[in-house]
Amino acid sequence: MEYRKIKDEDDDGGTVSDDIENLRGSGFTGVASVSNVPPREQAKWKRKTIVTLALTFLTSSQAILIVWSKRAGKYEYSVTTANFLVETLKCALSLAALARIWKNEGVTDDNKLSTTLDEVIVYPIPALLYLVKNLLQYYIFAYVDAPGYQILKNLNIISTGVLYRIILKKRLSEIQWAAFILLCAGCTTAQLNSRSDQVLQTPLPGWIMAIVMALLSGFAGVYTEAIIKKRPSRNINVQNFWLYIFGMAFNAVAILVQDFDAVMNKGFFHGYSIITTLMILNHALSGIAVSMVMKYADNIVKVYSTSVAMLLTAVVSVFLFGFNLTLAFFLGATVVSVSVYLHSAGKSQR
Amino acid sequence: MEYRKIKDEDDDGGTVSDDIENLRGSGFTGVASVSNVPPREQAKWKRKTIVTLALTFLTSSQAILIVWSKRAGKYEYSVTTANFLVETLKCALSLAALARIWKNEGVTDDNKLSTTLDEVIVYPIPALLYLVKNLLQYYIFAYVDAPGYQILKNLNIISTGVLYRIILKKRLSEIQWAAFILLCAGCTTAQLNSRSDQVLQTPLPGWIMAIVMALLSGFAGVYTEAIIKKRPSRNINVQNFWLYIFGMAFNAVAILVQDFDAVMNKGFFHGYSIITTLMILNHALSGIAVSMVMKYADNIVKVYSTSVAMLLTAVVSVFLFGFNLTLAFFLGATVVSVSVYLHSAGKSQR
Repeated sequence: MEYRKIKDEDDDGGTVSDDIENLRGSGFTGVASVSNVPPREQAKWKRKTIVTLALTFLTSSQAILIVWSKRAGKYEYSVTTANFLVETLKCALSLAALARIWKNEGVTDDNKLSTTLDEVIVYPIPALLYLVKNLLQYYIFAYVDAPGYQILKNLNIISTGVLYRIILKKRLSEIQWAAFILLCAGCTTAQLNSRSDQVLQTPLPGWIMAIVMALLSGFAGVYTEAIIKKRPSRNINVQNFWLYIFGMAFNAVAILVQDFDAVMNKGFFHGYSIITTLMILNHALSGIAVSMVMKYADNIVKVYSTSVAMLLTAVVSVFLFGFNLTLAFFLGATVVSVSVYLHSAGKSQR
Repeated sequence: MEYRKIKDEDDDGGTVSDDIENLRGSGFTGVASVSNVPPREQAKWKRKTIVTLALTFLTSSQAILIVWSKRAGKYEYSVTTANFLVETLKCALSLAALARIWKNEGVTDDNKLSTTLDEVIVYPIPALLYLVKNLLQYYIFAYVDAPGYQILKNLNIISTGVLYRIILKKRLSEIQWAAFILLCAGCTTAQLNSRSDQVLQTPLPGWIMAIVMALLSGFAGVYTEAIIKKRPSRNINVQNFWLYIFGMAFNAVAILVQDFDAVMNKGFFHGYSIITTLMILNHALSGIAVSMVMKYADNIVKVYSTSVAMLLTAVVSVFLFGFNLTLAFFLGATVVSVSVYLHSAGKSQR
C-alpha cells in the first residue's frame, strides 16, 4: 500500500519561465515592434504570453504549496486517488469550457466531442509514458536520494531539447542550443546544496534510469505537442478532453493495482486536507496550462517557463518561509537569465 | 614584519583560457579557413595562439606550484623579496632577448632601449596600480577570509570587460557580453565549496574594497594593453624592459618599507627553497606571457586564458594530488566552455 505525497504527472519539469520570445518582443524591442505586426499576430502573441505567464505562476505556486504542505506535517492521502481527481477535474474543466463554446458558437467540426479512431488512437500514449516513468521512479530511489533525484531531473531539459529537434523536426540555432545547455547547468547550480556532490557517486544503473526517465518525460512532452499541433484548427478543449480521459483511465487502474485495499478500508478521501485540495486544484490548472502552452507555444517555452518558476519559487520562499538564498542560487539564476536572453537573441540565427 | 606566500603581481586574474578566437579558427571552421587567409595573417594568428597557450600553461602550472608548496609545508620567505626577484628576472630576460635581436637585426628605432620622456612617463602607472591594489589586499582580509577573497576576485572578469570597453573603446557584441557574464558566473561556480555562502555575509566595506580592487586590477591590465598597443611597431622586449624596471623600483621600495628588518636580520634569501625558486621562475615567465598576450592579443583573451587555466589546474590536481572534482566544478566548467564558444560565435555580430 503506497501512501505518499502528491506528485505531478503532466508537468514533470518540476522546476518554471516566461515566454522568452514574447518577453523579448515586449521588453527589449519595445511597443513599437508590436504595433508594426498585424492584429492577428498580436492576438497570437497575446495568447502565447498569457498561457506562458499562467504556467509560470501555477508552477511557482505549486512548488510553494508543496513546501507549505511539508511544513504543515505529513499528509496520509493516497497519491493515486489524488492523481485520479486531478485528471477528473481537468476533464470536467475542459467539458465546461466546451459547453460554453457550444452555447456561443454552436457545434462545429472543430469543437465537436465525437472523434475518429484515427484521431484518438495516439491520445493514450503520453499518459502511458508518464505511467511507465512514475513506475520507474520507485526503483531509482534505490540508487539516489530525493534531493539527488531533483538534481538529476534537470536532465529533462536536455532530453526535451534533443527530442523536440528529432521528433518535431524544429531547428534550434547554435546559440539556442548553447542557451539550452546553460539552462540545464544554471537550474542545477541554483539547486546545489552541501550534499549535492553525492549525485556524482550515483552508480551506473541509477544514471541509466535517470536518463531513461528523462527521455520518457521528454518524449511524453514532445509527443503531446505533436498530437495537439497535428490538428491546428481542432479546439484545444476537445484535445484536452481526450488526453485527460485516458489519464483518468490509467489512474483508475493505478488505484486498483496499488491502493485498492487502502481506499476500501480507509475511504477514498482519507487524509485529505485544505492543502491537498489546493494542490489538486493547482495541478489540474497547471496541467491545462501545459496543454495550452503546447498548443500556442511549444515545449521549449514550457521548459523555460518551468525553470524561471523554480527561481521565482526560491525568491518567494525567502519572504514566505524565511529561506536563505545561497551564492549557488545567485550564480544559477544569473546563468538562467543569460540563457533566457540568448534563446531570444539566437532566434535570428535560425 | 610581513612574511607570506608569494603572490602574483602581474597576472592577477588568479584563474586561465585558450585563445578562443584561434581555437575556433582551427577547430571548428577547420584548416580550410586558415589556408584561405594570407601568410601574414597566418603568422599573426600563429603568434597569438602560441602566446595564449603559453599563458594558459604557465598560469596552470603556477597554481599547481602553489598547491605543491602548501602541501610541502609553510615557507617563511619574504614576499617582497620574491616579487623583486620576479621583476628583476623579467628585466634580465627582456634584455637577453633584446641582445639577441640587436645581434641579428642591428639596433633600430623600434628596438633601441633609449626612450623619450613622452614614451616612458606612462610606464610606472600599471606598477603603481598593482602596488595600491596589493596594499588594499591587507585590509580586505579584515572583512573576508582567503577562500572568500578568491570568490570575490572573479569580479576582475567583469571589471576588465567594462574597462576594456571604456578605455580601449573596443566593442564587444551583446553575445560576447553575455559570454563574459557567464565566464564570471562559471568561474565562481567552479570554485564553490561548502563555506562559499559566507561571502554573501561580507559587510559593505568589504564589498566596496573588493570592487575597488577589481577596478584597480582591471584598470592596470587594460592600461598596460593601451601602453603596449600605442606603439605597435615598438619591440615588445623594450616595452617590457621599461614596464619591469618600474616594477623593480616599486618592489625595492616595498622591501624597504615592509621587510627591511627581516632582510637585514635573516638575510635576503631566508626561507627560499626549490619550490620558491620554481615559483619565481614561473611568475617571471607568466608575466612575460601576459605582456605578449597584451601585445599580440588583448585583455579579453588574457581573461579567458587564465579562466581556462583555472579549470585545467583543477583537473590536473585530480591526478597529481588526488583532489575530488565537485558537481559545482562540472557545472562551472560547462558554463565556462559555453562562454568560450559564445565569445567566438558572438564575433560575427561585432
